[in-house]
Formats: sequence, C-alpha cells, structure tokens
Amino acid sequence: MSKGRRFQAPRGTRDFYPPQMAVRRHIESAWRKASIDCGFEEIEGPTFEHLDLYTVKSGEGIVSELFSFTREGGEDVYALRPEFTPTLARMAAAKGRSLALPTKWFAIPIHYRAERPQRGRLREFLQWNVDVVGAEAPVGEVEVLEPGILALERLGLGPEDVEIRLSHRDAIAGLLKALGVVEDRVPAAFELLDRLDRLPPEEFSRRGEALGLDAEAIERLRGLGARRFDLADGPDAIARALDVEPKLLETLEPLRQALAERGLLEWCRFDPGIVRGLAYYRGIVFELHERGGGERAVAGGGRYDGLIALLDGPDLPACGMGMGDVVLSLVLQDRGLLGEDDGEGLMPAPDAFVIALDEVGAARLPALVAGLRRAGLHVRHSHRTTRNLGKLLGEANRCRARSAVLLDGGASRGVATVKNLASGAQQEIGLEDLAASLGT
Amino acid sequence: MSKGRRFQAPRGTRDFYPPQMAVRRHIESAWRKASIDCGFEEIEGPTFEHLDLYTVKSGEGIVSELFSFTREGGEDVYALRPEFTPTLARMAAAKGRSLALPTKWFAIPIHYRAERPQRGRLREFLQWNVDVVGAEAPVGEVEVLEPGILALERLGLGPEDVEIRLSHRDAIAGLLKALGVVEDRVPAAFELLDRLDRLPPEEFSRRGEALGLDAEAIERLRGLGARRFDLADGPDAIARALDVEPKLLETLEPLRQALAERGLLEWCRFDPGIVRGLAYYRGIVFELHERGGGERAVAGGGRYDGLIALLDGPDLPACGMGMGDVVLSLVLQDRGLLGEDDGEGLMPAPDAFVIALDEVGAARLPALVAGLRRAGLHVRHSHRTTRNLGKLLGEANRCRARSAVLLDGGASRGVATVKNLASGAQQEIGLEDLAASLGT
Repeated sequence: MSKGRRFQAPRGTRDFYPPQMAVRRHIESAWRKASIDCGFEEIEGPTFEHLDLYTVKSGEGIVSELFSFTREGGEDVYALRPEFTPTLARMAAAKGRSLALPTKWFAIPIHYRAERPQRGRLREFLQWNVDVVGAEAPVGEVEVLEPGILALERLGLGPEDVEIRLSHRDAIAGLLKALGVVEDRVPAAFELLDRLDRLPPEEFSRRGEALGLDAEAIERLRGLGARRFDLADGPDAIARALDVEPKLLETLEPLRQALAERGLLEWCRFDPGIVRGLAYYRGIVFELHERGGGERAVAGGGRYDGLIALLDGPDLPACGMGMGDVVLSLVLQDRGLLGEDDGEGLMPAPDAFVIALDEVGAARLPALVAGLRRAGLHVRHSHRTTRNLGKLLGEANRCRARSAVLLDGGASRGVATVKNLASGAQQEIGLEDLAASLGT
Repeated sequence: MSKGRRFQAPRGTRDFYPPQMAVRRHIESAWRKASIDCGFEEIEGPTFEHLDLYTVKSGEGIVSELFSFTREGGEDVYALRPEFTPTLARMAAAKGRSLALPTKWFAIPIHYRAERPQRGRLREFLQWNVDVVGAEAPVGEVEVLEPGILALERLGLGPEDVEIRLSHRDAIAGLLKALGVVEDRVPAAFELLDRLDRLPPEEFSRRGEALGLDAEAIERLRGLGARRFDLADGPDAIARALDVEPKLLETLEPLRQALAERGLLEWCRFDPGIVRGLAYYRGIVFELHERGGGERAVAGGGRYDGLIALLDGPDLPACGMGMGDVVLSLVLQDRGLLGEDDGEGLMPAPDAFVIALDEVGAARLPALVAGLRRAGLHVRHSHRTTRNLGKLLGEANRCRARSAVLLDGGASRGVATVKNLASGAQQEIGLEDLAASLGT
C-alpha cells in the first residue's frame, strides 16, 4: 500500500458502490414508473437556490438548517436545497398564466440538511416529489397519493406494511376549539399536537395549560394525538368515537369518497395527530408510516395553496407529496425486499459472457464483443489470460450472465457455442445469428 | 397576478421543465445503456467532498474555481464537486486490495464550477464518467472510449460529426525534445501547446522563445498543434509526415491496433495538440470534438495512474473519460437530433387517454384509470368537465396518447370503445381485456 492521504465521504453522505447504486436505481425506477403511469411529467431544478427563496417561505429560522455559500468575490448567497417545493413553486410561478391546469409534475432531486446525521436522517438524500398544481381538495391529494401507493406496491409493500395517516387542518382546528382552545392559540395547539410523541407527558400538560386548557381538555388533546381511525368507517362513525359534532369532520367525506374511487381507502386512516410542522401547509395533510414496526415516516405531504402566489405567480391551489430514499431503503431492507445480497441481485445481469477457448477464439473476441454490444446486448468477457473453461465459467456465473458464448476454432467457419448458464443447455449458433439469439 | 417576490434560478444553473427534462433523460439513458452494455457498473458519491480532496489532487489553485462552504459552527470545509475522478479514486482507494481488477465503473454525477457562465459552460452540469481501474494502456483507454462511441452513435452522431483526437504524452515529449525543448521545460511546453488556440500568435512565439526555442522550432511547434493525422495510417506514416524519427511515435501502435480490433479506428485521429491541462494525466490523452462546426469539445479523458495511490490506495493504473451534457445537448440540437419540438417528442407518451362520454362512463372512470395504471400502463384523463368528444380527443392527441378509451353506457355491460389515435380505427373491447389490449 502507498502512504497517500486517506479521505472519507463527508459525514452524513453516502458512497454508492455498484450494489448500493442498484438499490438506489431500483427505488428510483419504481418512483419514476409510477409517476409516469399516473400522468405526471418529470422536472428538475438546480441543486442550490438563492438562500432567500427558503427564508421567504419558511422564515429566517431555516438558515441554521441549511448549507449556504457564496461564490468567492460574489454577492449572492446560495443554499443547497433542503426541499423541492420552493423550486417547484418558483418554476410554476415563472410560467404564470401559461401553465396548463392542472399541472402534474414529479422530480427525484437530491436534498441537503445541515443537521447532525442519525439513522434514517442523512445530510444528503434523495426525495421523490409528486405535485399537482391547479387542483382543489381532495382531487389533488388523491392524485399525489396514487403514484405513492403504486410505487410502494411495486416495491413489495402493502397496506399491512405502510399506512397513510391523513388529517385535515380545518377539522382539527374545529376539534381544538371544541376543547376550549381560543382562535389565536390554534397554531400553537397544532404545534403542541405535532410534538406529542417527542415531549415528556408533564411538559405536554404544562404547555396545554399555557394554551388555556383544563386538565380534562389536556387529556382529550392527548387522546386526539394517540388515536387513529379507519377512514372507511366514514366521518360520522369517527365523530361518534371522538364524541364530537359530526359537522366538525364533514371535510373528510369528499376525501374518503375520492380515495375509495381510486381503490386507496384500505391504506388510509384518519389520524388527528398529523399536523405537519411546516407552516405553509393547510387543509388536508398526511404522512405515510411504517406499520407495526418502527412506525418510521416514509413520506409526507399536504396542500400548500398560496405558495406560488408568494413567489409572484398566479394564486393557484397546489399540493404535493415527498418520499425520501433513506427510510424507505431501511424499511425495504428490514422486510427482505431488496434481496438477501445487499443489492447484488438488483445489478444489471449480462446477456452474455464471451469466452475464448483458443487462439482463434481470442483473435475473434474483441470484434465479436464490440458487435454484440453495438446490437444492444450487455456483454462481458474475462480480462484474465487463462484458458481454463471452469474458471472462466465461474467468472461468468459470478457476474450473473445468462449465457456463455464459447469461441474456438469454430469461429473460422462462422459458429460459436452458446451455453445457457441457468439450464446448462448448449447449442451451436452461427455468428451472424448470435445477437438475435442472445437477445431473446 | 399576485405581488409576491419573484425569484430566478441562480446564474449558470438550469430549470428543467418537462421537455428539457425529456432531453436530459434521453441523453442519460443513452449514456447508461452504453455503459451497461459495455460491462460498466454504476456508482455515485456525494455531491460535495472535503475541500482537501481537490487540493491534494490539483493544488491550491483550484480553490477559486470551487463553491466551498462549512456547516454553521462546523470545522470541516466542503466543496461542491467540480469533477468525479477524485471521488472515484477515493472510493477505489477505500476498497484497497479487495477491488476486483479491472474494475469498470460509470457514473452520471452533477458537477459544479464557480466560474462566470458562458455558452456551453455552466455552473451546474451533468457529466458522464466512465473509468477503468487496473488496466494498462491501451486496453483501459479503448474500454472507456467504446461506450463513449456507442452512446454517440445511439444519439445519432457518427464519425462525420465527432472525432476522437488522441495523443500520447510520451510521444509529444519526444517530439518536443526533438525540437530542442530541454527536459525540465517539457511541462511548460505542454502547457504552451495546450493554449495554442487561445494565445495570440505573437504571445505564442514570445513564450516559445522563453522555452529556449529558435524561430524554426517555434513554427514547427505551432504546426504540431495545428495538424491532425488519420491514426489508421499508422505511426510510421505520421512520423514521415511530421518529419520525425518513427521511434518517437511507436507508443501509438498498440493503441491503433486495439482501436482497430473494436471497430473504433474510423473515429480516431492523432492530434499532437491534445495535451489536457490537468497535471495528473499521463500517457494517452484524448478529446472528442465536433467536426466541421464549432469544433466544440464533447468529451475528454486520459490516464491517471498514481491518483489512487495518492489517496492511500493501492498503486493501480487507471484511466477515464468524462462527457458533459451541456455541449452535447447543443451539438445534438444543432443537428436536429432532438426533434423539431425542443424535447416535446421525447416525453413519455401515454398508452391511453380515457374519456367519459356520459354519466355512466364518468362514474366508472376513476376505478378504470386506477386499474389500468396498476397494470403498468401510462394512462391519462381530462380534468375538464366537458363531454365534447372532439375537444377531449384533441387533449388526447396533444399529450400524444396512443389510444383513446371511450367510456359510456356500455361500461354497464362491461365494454369500452378503444380508438387507435394514429390510424383512427375503433374497436369494442371488454373491460377485463382492456389492460392487455392497450399494453400491446
């Protein structure tokens, strides 16, 4: 070994060697195909934006969560993007009135978080974004949930693995007021509800008191965040279970119907504890959580009407969903859905591995390999000098080639032997027919 | 319009709306498929690295070309990656002796340059990287050029559009010494040769004199950088044309043979003016240039033996090629190879556009659309309330759907009408057979 200087990837970032990259592509392909099948069109923006784009949306508090920088001698301050919605809203705003409505866009951008990394939370990660601009609730929400579910299904997950926890901010606001929260304390109560899982019980109670709630109301608030209801039962049944006026939950009914029409209802539960911290969400909000395990959040989203207008665009309704790759990968891995071999089995398998058995074969090999590749086949050959067939077949099997092409003196009369590496069957094939034969 | 605050993408970065994104995916797909066909395995690393990784390789001078940053309160200095080779070498070094040899890796990373943007040079761009670690010249070089050519061919470019300009630093060093450049001035002479196109003739002469060359030698040096030779003619013929000892060019012969074996020779010319500025290149260097047009550089690369050892890894030979998306897109566009419609024609086309002709159809539509999408079909429908068939077929045609599915009262007895939007032919199909019928 040399004595050069050793470097590692920055903390919270990842090196993707071929097996890890195969996992990443597997997930990305499921995301992309589901998006396209559902009629979304792909977009992408810069990986960094003017810092102000984020403070305009989220306030100055976000600055400490961002990696920001300037160009040497430059005045503009940029930030690596922590989320895609501001970019999407900026791009939609730039189109102005020429934007087709509804516009259905998806993207698979890289995002950055300047936090301390932990399991499931990295400083650099991918996040699938699915957004509908120009559709009111609940149409937009169902449109963004549909590809989310389709992708999860194709990755091997079902409603027994992941559930969609839905809420409606208007419904929750009504419930909070019924508990005695006064109008101008509702945002603070949302925040408290959002932090229920992370606050010690005494602290939760203390903050509930500060909102003007009595002991009974605090217990009911705690209960609100801890219970989930089958949305299929309908809002009336849920209102009875919560002992509140059915009218408070009537905003859930159109959502329930739209989800039922698309066959998504079995995935969905009403969860009054889902608030979504981001200040710009309104109306329906949702999170996709793992079931019966770590309850890890796989995705989340909601409605952000008003954001495009904030960026000087038309005042359009909009909603979206984001699904990150880090937690999803862990959920898939824990369920054995990425294979037993850490991604090796997801790597592209060669159509053929070409083996020269003698000098005649060796002389023919480069042109033959180049020709098969030009015909669109994934073809490999050994870089070793050995002519040991067993060793070479071992190499072919290790890279999971479907067939071995054995080249020897027969190449002079225009033939090669093709060995199916699964069945072991061998067949002599004319060199001119080789590409067609291997491609089937 | 609202009066929010208007933002633009940072200078030198791009917003990819769906048609531009379709162009990007078209190029990326050609890159990826060519890489995989040629037996390369995909990797990826972080989009930022420790700044030192770049200064260790390229010297402190590179800092001004980088976007660098720290985490608030953190000590580590990071830089957005300006190129992929340091990341690749770091990842190869980390594998140490366990790295399979040769290792053939490709990546399609985002890169950053903190320069003033200009046509063909942006601050954020994609660059396809193809690298072979553990193969000596000329095997490695030919292995990285092969997918490069394959991708260009599939994008519609031929040897009449793009040429590979090859050189060999050892051969050029020999030529320079034959002109009278003393050993320790050879690097300076390389640099001068590299800048031939960009320096005014007098400045070139002045610098030639500073290298100790007489007027005749300066003219021969100028001639060296301005001439290109068919590599197919062989090094002896080129030596005669250059009026130098054939021995000086003998390093080109194995390269010529290897290129011929893979059918790549017709793309290649020997260009003594190709030096590649980067200090760590050695041996064979090359650039892919547009022919007969702007002569824009589409790709470049060479051998960088020693870099992996510099990063504390094994001392392995390595070489690679990088091809950016910015110049390539311009070259394709100028030749009409991206279609006449700025990418619209490259966007995914729906398999079907479902149209409800009456209330019965409208009631069936959501479940039918969801089912077809679940079956893997790309399906769209109108979000408008109109029942005007002409308008709805117009919408179907605008998004380039292959078929329209017309739903009406017939849905009650389990059938729909499928209209082929290219031929106009119509057919009644059972709803249960719809997915299979549309998928073919």
